[in-house]
Amino acid sequence: MNQKLEKFKQIIAEVTDLGRAEALLGWDQQVNMPKGGAEDRGNILETIAGISHKKFTSSETGELLEDLKLYAETLDPKSDDACLIKRMAHDYEKRTKVPSKWVEEFAKVTTISQGVWEEAKSENKFTLFQPHLEKVMELRREYADFFKPYDHVYDPLLDDFEPGLKTREVQDIFGKLRPQQVELLKAIAAKPMIDDSFLHISYADQGQWDFGVDVITRFGYDWNRGRQDKSVHPFTTGFGIGDIRITTRFDPDRAASALFSTMHEAGHAMYEQGVSETLRRTPLANGASMAVHESQSRMWENLVGRSKVFWKFFYPRLVKIFPQQLGNVSMENFYKGINKVEPSLIRVEADEATYNLHVMLRLELEIALLEGTLKVKDLPEAWNTRMKEYLGVVPPNDREGVLQDVHWSGGMIGYFPTYALGNLVSAQLWEKINQDIPNLESQIEQGKFDELLGWLHTKIHCHGAKFEPQTLVKEVTGSIITPEPYMRYLKSKYSEIYNL
Amino acid sequence: MNQKLEKFKQIIAEVTDLGRAEALLGWDQQVNMPKGGAEDRGNILETIAGISHKKFTSSETGELLEDLKLYAETLDPKSDDACLIKRMAHDYEKRTKVPSKWVEEFAKVTTISQGVWEEAKSENKFTLFQPHLEKVMELRREYADFFKPYDHVYDPLLDDFEPGLKTREVQDIFGKLRPQQVELLKAIAAKPMIDDSFLHISYADQGQWDFGVDVITRFGYDWNRGRQDKSVHPFTTGFGIGDIRITTRFDPDRAASALFSTMHEAGHAMYEQGVSETLRRTPLANGASMAVHESQSRMWENLVGRSKVFWKFFYPRLVKIFPQQLGNVSMENFYKGINKVEPSLIRVEADEATYNLHVMLRLELEIALLEGTLKVKDLPEAWNTRMKEYLGVVPPNDREGVLQDVHWSGGMIGYFPTYALGNLVSAQLWEKINQDIPNLESQIEQGKFDELLGWLHTKIHCHGAKFEPQTLVKEVTGSIITPEPYMRYLKSKYSEIYNL
Repeated sequence: MNQKLEKFKQIIAEVTDLGRAEALLGWDQQVNMPKGGAEDRGNILETIAGISHKKFTSSETGELLEDLKLYAETLDPKSDDACLIKRMAHDYEKRTKVPSKWVEEFAKVTTISQGVWEEAKSENKFTLFQPHLEKVMELRREYADFFKPYDHVYDPLLDDFEPGLKTREVQDIFGKLRPQQVELLKAIAAKPMIDDSFLHISYADQGQWDFGVDVITRFGYDWNRGRQDKSVHPFTTGFGIGDIRITTRFDPDRAASALFSTMHEAGHAMYEQGVSETLRRTPLANGASMAVHESQSRMWENLVGRSKVFWKFFYPRLVKIFPQQLGNVSMENFYKGINKVEPSLIRVEADEATYNLHVMLRLELEIALLEGTLKVKDLPEAWNTRMKEYLGVVPPNDREGVLQDVHWSGGMIGYFPTYALGNLVSAQLWEKINQDIPNLESQIEQGKFDELLGWLHTKIHCHGAKFEPQTLVKEVTGSIITPEPYMRYLKSKYSEIYNL
Repeated sequence: MNQKLEKFKQIIAEVTDLGRAEALLGWDQQVNMPKGGAEDRGNILETIAGISHKKFTSSETGELLEDLKLYAETLDPKSDDACLIKRMAHDYEKRTKVPSKWVEEFAKVTTISQGVWEEAKSENKFTLFQPHLEKVMELRREYADFFKPYDHVYDPLLDDFEPGLKTREVQDIFGKLRPQQVELLKAIAAKPMIDDSFLHISYADQGQWDFGVDVITRFGYDWNRGRQDKSVHPFTTGFGIGDIRITTRFDPDRAASALFSTMHEAGHAMYEQGVSETLRRTPLANGASMAVHESQSRMWENLVGRSKVFWKFFYPRLVKIFPQQLGNVSMENFYKGINKVEPSLIRVEADEATYNLHVMLRLELEIALLEGTLKVKDLPEAWNTRMKEYLGVVPPNDREGVLQDVHWSGGMIGYFPTYALGNLVSAQLWEKINQDIPNLESQIEQGKFDELLGWLHTKIHCHGAKFEPQTLVKEVTGSIITPEPYMRYLKSKYSEIYNL
């Protein structure tokens, strides 16, 4: 069996290497590549993806897995080997149950659909996009059906991003969360608006860069095993445990946006930098799920980065870099400004109190589309109705409404809930951390984050993708994912800011 | 046959894609990678190289090639397909005749040998390196023997860099060249030294960068299909016809070094940017040989970049950037300074009049080592004797003598002559170009290079690696590689500078 395990690990190592190469080709494409490189880059990526897919889905891998699954039952279920076998068996099934004919059609349909979506968005014409989205949904239903029997047609899609999580669980969580968030938002909306005009003046790129670097260096982002570059959309990617990179971008009139996105990406990156060395060259050297990954980025961005204690340390340093812009703004007003709540149309610009509402709306709609209980042609109306109900605002057009996100056009169904789940998990972990590190706030106030990062490394990061998200969250916090800690966090924070 | 050709081209395209991925991984390693990325990067590169090797040397490729070689005989021998089949059959033979056992041992031996060489160099102890170089030479003799029968044991090694070129041809060329270069050098050495002290003061990096960019932009380096970054050693690499990148580095006290290296690398890059679109995704999207590649870099660096007409246009622009350093230096004195001849110990710092002598010395020694007519233990003495004879200087230690270059420790035998051959080809092409573009000098004097680059694109670049170097040089200049044009160039240039 040992020999089979070694053979299997060798295949997995090579598949991982190929994935890392793809990641570098993708990073370079967004960070460095001159436009003339596009055609060849597409070919290179396609060739490597093809080789990788063939290697992973080969009958050799399948036969090894059959034997190893039995062997894994004899192991400690928390051991690296048992987890690797279990996760790879899961991925193997997901990859091999989908016929390559479907994969090809899906690639073709979504490529076209994304192009049309861009056009529809720029021309503000949902009807252009409608037949393509219908086709995408039809293909996604077919995809789900490859994994029959299921409890819910959305389950196999959700599972691609949150292994093991069921639609029913997410609906339960969001069912409790939504009315509370709507209620909180109404209470805030009744209060006077916060003035954050000082955030919408010009801040020099270099100052933003330097301040961001100062912050994430203090967080514990390891520059010997990473780097930061500029790109149009910020992202995190890695080419091995020792090389996890982030990117950022600057909007000179929205300084806060770059800063919080730098903290966000560093949160993702420190997760992967903290994965155990023993998981090197396996797909387990990654986050447990998208939601758990997002819990890390959101924790550093929001629970740390938008807290008052954080700014007690960092605000004087920021004012030093931008004396003209902030010299006359008190720390208190700055803190309120970066936490201003304002129901808006666009998800990616939403604040902590409204963000989840955007996500829940999308989840409900994509489930309904998939179930067939909502027709694509009725989607814009359903969108606007829910916007009014949850956020109290209605988009003046589909460009700022149903056409704003790229996900559906690319066939990415099942991804949206992970954003909100990440927020919930971040607060759930935060309560536990504060129990374990009672003086955490005073540490943050002194710019010290090593104990916090150490806790995350030990409890979350080191395990990589060994465990399913619910298993990991329960193991660490004593409960599966629940909305209460996040609601407690929001209520406490905004009660103070808005005098609720 | 058409189906077989398509199948073959698909394999070659994928092998090319993998090679491009390796190139990007290598570029990133030298330009961006944090040190923590080294271990994973090594694994990724090894995995891709292994897959690529297996794909290219498979029996499927071999059988296709057997059929296609016959088919190629029915084609125009200058057609893309005929050239591709011919070149791939050549490479296939070279790759498959070498047992993988040898490849593994060679990799192991040279990895160790490079480590020991570094140590030997830093400790100035040739005896440390000696047994490793003996092993390398033994393995290289074995390598040559896989290709028996040959005219000379050095032939199969030389052929790795200069397809089709024979040791005898190189020896003939260098036999004529060497006494003329030695004689010229003696004449120059008898003249008063040129003062170039203004080159050895501090020049700000940014000014060097900006000037270099100005120069190579005017040369015609296409920034839409390339970019420049910094690295420890300057190099050129490509990830497709539309993405050919260069790197540079700055020594604040040796401004000329960075500038000429930028022109040099741009020369390499413009070669690959000029390869015909029809050769995309084949290994023919490359230079004809190392020597022809070097002829392009050397032409832009020396025949253009160290010419008086070039500086008539660019010197005022340079003075504008560095008024403090160059405000009091006349163009004439600057021109003499950058063309100063001084026999020195180190090849990479050598000027045009001495560079080839360094190379010829190495070629003679590596041939003698391979033949067994020189023992490795006697190498330092042989080195010093020849230095005295050719350059009139003797290294005070082996660090500045026989241990200076990395090539031998890495098993790179057969590479050295390409440097000098590149110089010869550059001058040979230059004579032809000046016949075809009679007013070239006055174009350069106006900072215009489009006709020159156009000539190179049409006559050299577009063919990529379709033809063997001697075939290409003969086709373009009417003669195979010969030393006379280069000697005419050197004599004419230095007669004027040194009043010979």
